[in-house]
Amino acid sequence: MLVKKATAELYADYKARMQQIADVRYSIAVLSWDQETYLPEKGARFRGQQITTLSTMAHELFTAEVLGSLLHELSSRSDMDAGKQKNIALSLEDYEKNKKYPAAFVAEMSQTTSAAYHAWIKARKLNSYEVFEPFLNRMVQLKRQETELLGYEGHPYNALLNEYEKGATTTMLDQVFADVRSSLSPLLARIAAQPIPDKQFLHKHYDKDKQWQLGIQLLKEMGYDMAAGRQDISEHPFTTSFSPEDVRVTTRIDENDFGNMTWSCIHEGGHALYEQGLPAEEYGLPLGEAASLGIHESQSRLWENNVGRSLAYWQHHYPALQALFPENLANIPLQDFYRAINLVQPSLIRTEADELTYHFHVMIRYEIEKGLIDGSIGTDVLRETWNQYYQQYLHVTPPDDIQGVLQDIHWSHGSFGYFPTYSLGSFYAAQFYAAAQKQVPGLDNDIASGVYTNLLNWLREHIHPYGRFYTSNELCEKVTGEPLQFAHFLKYAEEKFK
Amino acid sequence: MLVKKATAELYADYKARMQQIADVRYSIAVLSWDQETYLPEKGARFRGQQITTLSTMAHELFTAEVLGSLLHELSSRSDMDAGKQKNIALSLEDYEKNKKYPAAFVAEMSQTTSAAYHAWIKARKLNSYEVFEPFLNRMVQLKRQETELLGYEGHPYNALLNEYEKGATTTMLDQVFADVRSSLSPLLARIAAQPIPDKQFLHKHYDKDKQWQLGIQLLKEMGYDMAAGRQDISEHPFTTSFSPEDVRVTTRIDENDFGNMTWSCIHEGGHALYEQGLPAEEYGLPLGEAASLGIHESQSRLWENNVGRSLAYWQHHYPALQALFPENLANIPLQDFYRAINLVQPSLIRTEADELTYHFHVMIRYEIEKGLIDGSIGTDVLRETWNQYYQQYLHVTPPDDIQGVLQDIHWSHGSFGYFPTYSLGSFYAAQFYAAAQKQVPGLDNDIASGVYTNLLNWLREHIHPYGRFYTSNELCEKVTGEPLQFAHFLKYAEEKFK
Repeated sequence: MLVKKATAELYADYKARMQQIADVRYSIAVLSWDQETYLPEKGARFRGQQITTLSTMAHELFTAEVLGSLLHELSSRSDMDAGKQKNIALSLEDYEKNKKYPAAFVAEMSQTTSAAYHAWIKARKLNSYEVFEPFLNRMVQLKRQETELLGYEGHPYNALLNEYEKGATTTMLDQVFADVRSSLSPLLARIAAQPIPDKQFLHKHYDKDKQWQLGIQLLKEMGYDMAAGRQDISEHPFTTSFSPEDVRVTTRIDENDFGNMTWSCIHEGGHALYEQGLPAEEYGLPLGEAASLGIHESQSRLWENNVGRSLAYWQHHYPALQALFPENLANIPLQDFYRAINLVQPSLIRTEADELTYHFHVMIRYEIEKGLIDGSIGTDVLRETWNQYYQQYLHVTPPDDIQGVLQDIHWSHGSFGYFPTYSLGSFYAAQFYAAAQKQVPGLDNDIASGVYTNLLNWLREHIHPYGRFYTSNELCEKVTGEPLQFAHFLKYAEEKFK
Repeated sequence: MLVKKATAELYADYKARMQQIADVRYSIAVLSWDQETYLPEKGARFRGQQITTLSTMAHELFTAEVLGSLLHELSSRSDMDAGKQKNIALSLEDYEKNKKYPAAFVAEMSQTTSAAYHAWIKARKLNSYEVFEPFLNRMVQLKRQETELLGYEGHPYNALLNEYEKGATTTMLDQVFADVRSSLSPLLARIAAQPIPDKQFLHKHYDKDKQWQLGIQLLKEMGYDMAAGRQDISEHPFTTSFSPEDVRVTTRIDENDFGNMTWSCIHEGGHALYEQGLPAEEYGLPLGEAASLGIHESQSRLWENNVGRSLAYWQHHYPALQALFPENLANIPLQDFYRAINLVQPSLIRTEADELTYHFHVMIRYEIEKGLIDGSIGTDVLRETWNQYYQQYLHVTPPDDIQGVLQDIHWSHGSFGYFPTYSLGSFYAAQFYAAAQKQVPGLDNDIASGVYTNLLNWLREHIHPYGRFYTSNELCEKVTGEPLQFAHFLKYAEEKFK
């Protein structure tokens, strides 16, 4: 029956179904945003139930047989433009992947995730990995099972990676992190030999309201459209999107840590600019979605680090910042400020790491995840493995589990394969920014003058509008002429930290 | 097949289905709340689409044949307690009512509502009833059709009334409004003969932040649980509920009108206390829902007027209020303040009317709605009818349509039968409050001392926990020993305004 219908008609049906699913998913995003920003304490119980109900409905709509038939039929049609064909191909891929999960597996994963998350919370309270270990072990068994359900080529970890970064493989990541080890280790050693710059003044008292105003101003200057978004306060900063015309960011303010709000604000602003730049006419369709987590992170890191931690950026902003906080900064020269905000120093906590040692934190997690998934590392020896790695690469040893193996939420959520995208994001960012520096005349002068329009226009032309049309690496090749090369990050790092 | 299942099992199925529908409906409420409070300008387009999608899904779930079969089967079972039986009876009633609307009618009503609403906006811009008239005419035809679809006894308007106030009839309302006319008119005449108190000082400058703090304080004092709710700013104040554990209010602040925020805050607080007092264990079921619009309004009016505009209330609050705004109130004695906030004066706009003339505004709309529905009034003569009524009962004539027949949004929304619930709310409030004064020892002293616990406990015992178990009038009889009697309101008014 489907065969007799015109392609345009079938495509319209597909689009309507996908947009209905998107409406439900974005509604969940609104409920979740509210949960993190404004939900009163007692509202949590029913809110959890409301989100679960909508999630189930979205899942049912997306796994409906009728959608499958439609996608199969449409994927056999050739009278569509390349964009439509890509939408169909990607939706079919997503659909087929979803179909690979038996209901029993989904239910067990859901229960295990919930139990593991609560065990992780409890383990952190008790500062005891042992409390978390049996739950993590069960989670790892399920994730191994998941790799078999999904199927893979090469290492089973590839199946999980693919969830977050399509096309990424252990072959690629092994090479990337080998580069990290071989190139960054000597650089770190050189930096460690230098005197540590003073950064005490970053931890004086910075008024909350002034910080808030500064954050809003930085966002607006980047080109973040406040008529299509807003900023609020939450415990952990995040970006969320309800459509390209409503992309919200959150921040947190620590009055004794100037950097906390400032770079999280620029970071989330980078994510938000990407979401605001996705094509609204592809709402609900793959071409209206971000390419991958790695590409998303490239946008936040590019703004946070390549732009927001550059000397040029602060050449423009620092005088006004000194005027805003004269009691803390009047006597600090720009060079001292710049060195302080770029201090490189091995530490225990990933989320607080500088932009170089950060990648060792990620590498350690990547090696551990691979080992857990292929069985070469057991959860029973995880603390020891973790501490050994930290000693080996960062020369620090966690004094306890909270500052060690229990620090990240990811594994309790079942998010295996997520961590590498953080590093990939930085490396893509360096490569994209190098390309922008070549292709946008006077970019460094722009930044030193507080002008970001040309950079944003370049991102809006070369990266944002494609959605998932290209995979990360295809996009990288298209924009920069070559696949991901760690050399660009290394060059950036060496120039900055030499 | 259903017959073979145990009642408990069927009831659990019913409950799960109803809670799923509630989850979707409350999600819509969250999206709508966000729309009125925090939505960025450009977010409106997709937000409208998201709300429409969820509404359609909720409608489909609630009209599903399987739910109907379940309800019919359960309504034949007797091995349930009275609460469960009432839930089933009410849900079946709602279900059957929904089923009476053919899809074509629903679609046409939806289109007509949208068109009529936009025509109303445009008509107000142009200050011209003629722009709205054809759309209103179409709407009236549809509402007349709706009365036939729903069925009714007596006047066709009863079918529409029933949507908002189950059990209310034109027979009952004709009597109520005859009482309004015969009793309030002489009272108004007596008041009009007295000198008009000064209220200029209520329109001096009242600082926004101080007003906000005052509003929060008044809400907390009433017993509004801030851990199960919150207040935000919106253009029009409203109360919304996502569960009894998350009931939110909004307010607006006019720096040149002290009363605007103050009594809207207490009013919404009254609505919110009712919602917070509904039984959480009946979430999604009729017994977890408000009895009717009239009873809902009785809760807001009781707090706003019987409590919040009483001399006792301000005996407690006025000294602190004078200290908060000394520049405006230091030289104003309590008695003058009390007279000013209770000024009775006929006016053009319903939402700005005092608590006596208000009911003439409602009565006029009630008479017009009845006439439109039974065909005795045509939309072509509506402006003239309106103005004539206003001259007759309030001795004022609208200078234009915006201040006359175009002032309310209700008809453009198709809400016929809604207005009378505003007056019923006030009259129920007076009757409930009179009962509370008898049953709660020392209530007047409580209010004069800023103590509301005993009043709230009384409402929490006698009114809030029943949900829809009793109709408005059943509840009224249960609480006060008699059905709704206008005499209680009259007594209240005469004592206050004599």
